[in-house]
Amino acid sequence: MNVTDPFRDADGDKLREECGIFGAIRSDQASALTALGLHALQHRGQEAAGITSFDGTTFFSRRGLGHVAENFSTPQQLGELPGFMAAGHVRYSTTGGSGLRNVQPLYADLASGGFAVAHNGNFSNAQAVRDDLVSRGAIFQSTSDTEVIIHLVATSRYPTMIDRFVDALRMVEGAYSLIVMTPEGMIACRDPLGIRPLQMGKLGDAVVFASETVAFDVVGAEFTRSIEPGELVKVGFDGKVESLRPFGNHAPRPCIFEHVYFSRPDSIFDGRSVYAARKAIGEQLAIESPVEADLVVPVPDSGVPAAIGYAQQSGVPFELGIIRSHYVGRTFIQPGDGARTSSVKRKHNANRGLVEGKRIVLIDDSIVRGTTSLQIVEMMREAGASEVHFRVASPPTAHSCFYGVDTPERSKLLAARMDVEPMREFIKADSLAFVSIDGLYRAVGGIPRNSACPQFCDACFTGEYPTSLTDLAQKQAGDAQLSFDKVA
Amino acid sequence: MNVTDPFRDADGDKLREECGIFGAIRSDQASALTALGLHALQHRGQEAAGITSFDGTTFFSRRGLGHVAENFSTPQQLGELPGFMAAGHVRYSTTGGSGLRNVQPLYADLASGGFAVAHNGNFSNAQAVRDDLVSRGAIFQSTSDTEVIIHLVATSRYPTMIDRFVDALRMVEGAYSLIVMTPEGMIACRDPLGIRPLQMGKLGDAVVFASETVAFDVVGAEFTRSIEPGELVKVGFDGKVESLRPFGNHAPRPCIFEHVYFSRPDSIFDGRSVYAARKAIGEQLAIESPVEADLVVPVPDSGVPAAIGYAQQSGVPFELGIIRSHYVGRTFIQPGDGARTSSVKRKHNANRGLVEGKRIVLIDDSIVRGTTSLQIVEMMREAGASEVHFRVASPPTAHSCFYGVDTPERSKLLAARMDVEPMREFIKADSLAFVSIDGLYRAVGGIPRNSACPQFCDACFTGEYPTSLTDLAQKQAGDAQLSFDKVA
Amino acid sequence: MNVTDPFRDADGDKLREECGIFGAIRSDQASALTALGLHALQHRGQEAAGITSFDGTTFFSRRGLGHVAENFSTPQQLGELPGFMAAGHVRYSTTGGSGLRNVQPLYADLASGGFAVAHNGNFSNAQAVRDDLVSRGAIFQSTSDTEVIIHLVATSRYPTMIDRFVDALRMVEGAYSLIVMTPEGMIACRDPLGIRPLQMGKLGDAVVFASETVAFDVVGAEFTRSIEPGELVKVGFDGKVESLRPFGNHAPRPCIFEHVYFSRPDSIFDGRSVYAARKAIGEQLAIESPVEADLVVPVPDSGVPAAIGYAQQSGVPFELGIIRSHYVGRTFIQPGDGARTSSVKRKHNANRGLVEGKRIVLIDDSIVRGTTSLQIVEMMREAGASEVHFRVASPPTAHSCFYGVDTPERSKLLAARMDVEPMREFIKADSLAFVSIDGLYRAVGGIPRNSACPQFCDACFTGEYPTSLTDLAQKQAGDAQLSFDKVA
Amino acid sequence: MNVTDPFRDADGDKLREECGIFGAIRSDQASALTALGLHALQHRGQEAAGITSFDGTTFFSRRGLGHVAENFSTPQQLGELPGFMAAGHVRYSTTGGSGLRNVQPLYADLASGGFAVAHNGNFSNAQAVRDDLVSRGAIFQSTSDTEVIIHLVATSRYPTMIDRFVDALRMVEGAYSLIVMTPEGMIACRDPLGIRPLQMGKLGDAVVFASETVAFDVVGAEFTRSIEPGELVKVGFDGKVESLRPFGNHAPRPCIFEHVYFSRPDSIFDGRSVYAARKAIGEQLAIESPVEADLVVPVPDSGVPAAIGYAQQSGVPFELGIIRSHYVGRTFIQPGDGARTSSVKRKHNANRGLVEGKRIVLIDDSIVRGTTSLQIVEMMREAGASEVHFRVASPPTAHSCFYGVDTPERSKLLAARMDVEPMREFIKADSLAFVSIDGLYRAVGGIPRNSACPQFCDACFTGEYPTSLTDLAQKQAGDAQLSFDKVA
Repeated sequence: MNVTDPFRDADGDKLREECGIFGAIRSDQASALTALGLHALQHRGQEAAGITSFDGTTFFSRRGLGHVAENFSTPQQLGELPGFMAAGHVRYSTTGGSGLRNVQPLYADLASGGFAVAHNGNFSNAQAVRDDLVSRGAIFQSTSDTEVIIHLVATSRYPTMIDRFVDALRMVEGAYSLIVMTPEGMIACRDPLGIRPLQMGKLGDAVVFASETVAFDVVGAEFTRSIEPGELVKVGFDGKVESLRPFGNHAPRPCIFEHVYFSRPDSIFDGRSVYAARKAIGEQLAIESPVEADLVVPVPDSGVPAAIGYAQQSGVPFELGIIRSHYVGRTFIQPGDGARTSSVKRKHNANRGLVEGKRIVLIDDSIVRGTTSLQIVEMMREAGASEVHFRVASPPTAHSCFYGVDTPERSKLLAARMDVEPMREFIKADSLAFVSIDGLYRAVGGIPRNSACPQFCDACFTGEYPTSLTDLAQKQAGDAQLSFDKVA
Repeated sequence: MNVTDPFRDADGDKLREECGIFGAIRSDQASALTALGLHALQHRGQEAAGITSFDGTTFFSRRGLGHVAENFSTPQQLGELPGFMAAGHVRYSTTGGSGLRNVQPLYADLASGGFAVAHNGNFSNAQAVRDDLVSRGAIFQSTSDTEVIIHLVATSRYPTMIDRFVDALRMVEGAYSLIVMTPEGMIACRDPLGIRPLQMGKLGDAVVFASETVAFDVVGAEFTRSIEPGELVKVGFDGKVESLRPFGNHAPRPCIFEHVYFSRPDSIFDGRSVYAARKAIGEQLAIESPVEADLVVPVPDSGVPAAIGYAQQSGVPFELGIIRSHYVGRTFIQPGDGARTSSVKRKHNANRGLVEGKRIVLIDDSIVRGTTSLQIVEMMREAGASEVHFRVASPPTAHSCFYGVDTPERSKLLAARMDVEPMREFIKADSLAFVSIDGLYRAVGGIPRNSACPQFCDACFTGEYPTSLTDLAQKQAGDAQLSFDKVA
Repeated sequence: MNVTDPFRDADGDKLREECGIFGAIRSDQASALTALGLHALQHRGQEAAGITSFDGTTFFSRRGLGHVAENFSTPQQLGELPGFMAAGHVRYSTTGGSGLRNVQPLYADLASGGFAVAHNGNFSNAQAVRDDLVSRGAIFQSTSDTEVIIHLVATSRYPTMIDRFVDALRMVEGAYSLIVMTPEGMIACRDPLGIRPLQMGKLGDAVVFASETVAFDVVGAEFTRSIEPGELVKVGFDGKVESLRPFGNHAPRPCIFEHVYFSRPDSIFDGRSVYAARKAIGEQLAIESPVEADLVVPVPDSGVPAAIGYAQQSGVPFELGIIRSHYVGRTFIQPGDGARTSSVKRKHNANRGLVEGKRIVLIDDSIVRGTTSLQIVEMMREAGASEVHFRVASPPTAHSCFYGVDTPERSKLLAARMDVEPMREFIKADSLAFVSIDGLYRAVGGIPRNSACPQFCDACFTGEYPTSLTDLAQKQAGDAQLSFDKVA
Repeated sequence: MNVTDPFRDADGDKLREECGIFGAIRSDQASALTALGLHALQHRGQEAAGITSFDGTTFFSRRGLGHVAENFSTPQQLGELPGFMAAGHVRYSTTGGSGLRNVQPLYADLASGGFAVAHNGNFSNAQAVRDDLVSRGAIFQSTSDTEVIIHLVATSRYPTMIDRFVDALRMVEGAYSLIVMTPEGMIACRDPLGIRPLQMGKLGDAVVFASETVAFDVVGAEFTRSIEPGELVKVGFDGKVESLRPFGNHAPRPCIFEHVYFSRPDSIFDGRSVYAARKAIGEQLAIESPVEADLVVPVPDSGVPAAIGYAQQSGVPFELGIIRSHYVGRTFIQPGDGARTSSVKRKHNANRGLVEGKRIVLIDDSIVRGTTSLQIVEMMREAGASEVHFRVASPPTAHSCFYGVDTPERSKLLAARMDVEPMREFIKADSLAFVSIDGLYRAVGGIPRNSACPQFCDACFTGEYPTSLTDLAQKQAGDAQLSFDKVA
């Protein structure tokens, strides 16, 4: 399949958001709204999509590998999803061989009736909880961490659905924005730290939820407000909206990388447009790390807003020195005729006429493994650039994410292995600079980082994880045990 | 299928190039090179692709609907195409119900052996020639205009293949860049006026041909030169290259729209980069039609280079006021909840935070039907723009193309129905201006249009067609006859 | 799909066995043996097939709609099923929309490791058990009655797998032949009455199990013995075979319809070939209900052995007066040109030259709804038969089966609605006779029915069900309640 | 795909009819009739099917690999084939890689309008004619011999369609039954010797044509008469039927193997039922080659009628000693556990209880390679048969067919390599006998063979080919030339 992803790189040299979610209640076109909303969130997950709907009596599900448009655009496809409540999910990866089983929303028939859940995030103690449930006789259908929620609800002793659901949430740790459907209505909730985003909107009588506001623009809905960290919003079929705060108050820690890279530039978080934040990062970068040059060239497409900011701040002209093809297939055979035909060329090609003889400032959003950065720098030099300066619109990415973002193992992260100067050598640039963590905070939130109580989750840059990581700790203990065993 | 096309609009409100071609000889990876080359030309045709190869004894063909990457990327797929010579074709449309039959290269077993042809362009007397051939007993396999060439070669009385081929070319009129394969080698040729492009390159021992130079960049080949208008280049398996000029000399008339819109910005024609030409058109536009404004906003993606040029010339800042989604499915059901959810929003969304309260200059490459332009202007206003000025990087498109470009019927072209001021009213802009025809010539070729002998084919703007249009003339005569019959 | 079923009728006017099962342990070609064995049992279920294998560490599953040969014949398909233990299942119907979810073997990861089960039969209290399990938090993956076994094992408190399995079996009632796989080996078992069959064989070191002996013939295995009613046979990877009898002793009640119709004629039950039994039924019928006639004509293919018996006993010649086409598609459009083109003609066509002017004895294995019988009789008359006498190789089918056989609702069974003479009128035969229940017992088992303690399950003829029918009783109680409610 | 073929053997050890054809004109359900008629002729070709229809203006075609029911049974599928005239074709093999291109009816747009042809048979000079046409500029679409007819019609100089068609037929030699459609109506014709069959029927106003009468039974049509050898029957849309005899009179030579094996037993040729002819061959065989035995056992299914005849004539009882499975997949992996699991067992299994200790007469319709016969004999012995006598319902098949029947190369035919006694040894039977050629003629036609002027084409038995074999002669000349070249 020809997977194209305009906001990121297809070869895995980027961090990847794993999911986007959307829900609609009180619309007789709930599933059509959900399809369109998911389509607007397609950049958050391209490998699979699912929608579950409810018509007052029965839940209906449809899942598919590939894009939303392939699976949820025809009248026949949507005809399988009748009703006035629906929720959907786009997913980056389908881990393992279980294929469609892991595509969300997950659904189960509980004693109290149907229960469907769509999840953006990751439970950092999912394995521990699962092991405990299995030892008590639970049978899992998927390998998804999300499924523990369903079993926790199914086995909770509380009398009401909402109490069973809160009981279940108390058992899990990590990051989660959830949209849940029961025969009583829809529940949207966000983990106590609000790591992953979740927005609320309305469209006539309908209430809608989405990972990003851009989905509301596309379906024609109006943005109401963000779901608060630790908040549960329950919407009944009569339109009654209740807000619960079962976990008390915590200082929020939303993911700062949503601003750097994951979200669409036309989305808005807490009143700040993502595009504006990215431009501000570029400006900050120009102030922190200026360089004399002829052209500011973005690594397309995600580097464009920061490059515009950098260019405006520095006065160096913005130009498309790299042309991106959006027709990207991963498995092309490379004819090995001795010619240099690196795979990067299939998606990025130097605009030779422009670049030749020029001093270039390349702007990219982040460096993960560094392999693509190296190829881009080399491509610029082959096209005749006299100097290539690399500027990165985020601090060095030195730590893995356990909150629903696909990161390589830490050992593969370039910034985990070396300092900035060796990184510069590795990517063969004339100079290399990253925006500072304070610069980033300032661009995104207006003030520097409060190190006592950071305003964002920035664990990928700082290693300061805001929750326990039970599964990781047990795995490390096990590995240690294994090592110990071997030694003894 | 989720068709994405970064350089143009999916709803048909653009002119569309109909084909791209690529050929390689003297490489044991000829079909892999061809697949990669076609992939780089994917923007010239997304609906079907085909490759034919030759291994010294047998011709092999594979055709498929959809993108190159879907049909020609796996070892199994390419394993069906062995040999050291191959040619391929990407195609915009598969007209009618005949599906794969019309996908090129077309192939036939002639008395002299196999004959394969890939064609970019259109024969303007194809129907007349076909009628004549059928009356003499020829049986056509496809509804493609290209097939007449094969029958003309098959029935030619000349003794050698090259003579039969030239004999066939003398029978046709219109625009054609052709790559032909026979058991003797490869022939690349261009019609006497050179309306459609064709480039020649080399990669080690291999000789390659492509519609645009970007294909050479992607396969790692070196650009040699353009095939001249009216030239036939014949390459043998021994590497011998011969150039023939059987049609004498004509003043060339290459299609100027290749610079405006069809070609990739990183391609180079006659030493001039397409990107540079487009920026120059934008500069020209800023000089010819300045306006006081806060932001220059491109209609993405094709309007971007001209917008950069306009911004640099005018000093008004370049900003991404419209964010484009590249996940485009054509058949989404529109939930009709009374909300405004025009289909244009699925691919273009206003960057509200940026646009609000601003005076905007929108830059687009052309206006065809005008419907999309209207939606874009309205979207800007809804997002709060205080003024919307529309600037177009080509003159008004008022005439159909009969040379291999898919244009709506003339009656659907906005510029064929009205002048500039009514067009402005139609699209609801505060002002509207097109670049002048001389400005366009200056930007692309350095000097104004020579009206006695224009340097380009600009029939879509001027209605001056450089060849006879036999089929059109016969059809009009027939229609006239019909009208006459009705009257009498 | 073109479903062909040589031993029965495609239009639903037959009872249908719902499943066949096969298992192999201690062979490094376990899944290939299982595929071939299932292929030999294809007549027991044509709509879906599945195989699960175990390689000492991991369980592998593959399921598909359609025939075994479509899903389990290529090296790639079987390559997905490595290991030295495998079990498989063919299935008549995939009830509801859940498709592949209900295809067996069912599999779950339990705390003790993997657990796979293939089931031939039906639990007559499955709904009651399921409701109880769900109320305790169990989440079901399928709508199959078989899944209760897995949850009962998962939630059993006994310490060993075999004890948990026996504990689970004690909770269910009805008919079941099961093949179970765990990391400790394979368990084959049969319900206490042995309603459904299960055979054991060997092939070199391997132990194999199958619903019918014909599967052993086809894989080249040797028949060892039948699994006894109420017996569990456990086979370890070391080849150790243990027999358990956890349910004490019961008089067996195997399904007599296996002899009449379900099983292949070349299978052998308790030393008696099915073919011989069917011929003996035909002989019995000739003795009980003779008639003067010119030809004995079987309704192909299932009526053939009884017809041969009838012909040999009566001296009336056996002839193929009906020719059967095995290319049967269910959905053909009937051109309605006023001609008589009943769907029965697509599979059964009169052998006109033979039948014309003759007195015919038609032999069929059973009458279910009677609609096909009527069409066959009419077809004989149209072809010129002077008399048509109908003889049936089983007693009138007047009761539904709840033990894994697909029967129409009772109200659709012709024999539930009327006596023999009205049945004769309905099918328009000159005479109609069924074999007597004692005649059937004599033909199959050598002695008449012991009405105090019948030797077979013959509930479909007599209505004497050998087990409780909890789900049916609860449903009837519910319906009664409903009626009562309406009245009150 | 699970290909089942009740009347023959799936492993290629049978001669195979290559095609069946059906046509209908003057019915508004022409394509539905054709689909049903082809379905009844499915035994004549299982690998591909096609239908072409005409609605007064346009021809419509649909082709598919696989069975008729898979490709022509749904309303959608038949909705693609509107009109009141249709013809179709089932085909045994799709030679070479050209796939659907060779599936008939073949169709072309000629100067006079559309022309569709469905062909049962084979032109024995197709290559010679093709070479000539190609040398004159014709371009072939398929590798089918049938296509020459279209080109011959297209290039004929005669003024009317019927004259051009007769002109074309004069150029070809061999066996052909053709159904042709033009904008003027339908033409059905048979070669001058009538080697392949073609029947005519009616259904209300509609006229229908089919290879066998069984198709009329299934669609509800009435048999009118056979098309005569050398006759062209032309049917107009007004219902006018004309008969032409452009080739003068020849003594007919219909294929005798249609009676032995190809046709369905319920079809009727020249007033004689195929079933009756086959029974008569069995009787003849019992008279010519009696043997003392306990059971007459047919090799199912094709041997059944002859076995009934043999049993009735000899008094030895007819029994199903071999049970055939109709679920046949060709590619099953054979588990090689050292056990004997020959592929023949997947379709033929010994009815052990019956056969043990008995003297068996096996009846089969023919012996081709002999490999299956050997396996069947061995299977009988393994099942305990004390003697196995083999009787064949046709003379030894010692010559290839060039008239549309798929025969192995001559060197693979057992009877071409050895006499009867060595054949007996080869198949390990206790005795072996074939019906005599005169016995066969008597059974099928009532009188012995007239050796001066045989009443049938029996070339596969006698080597007396009734037409020239130009392509074979040229190939042999070429081979001779080659041999000569090598020697010299």
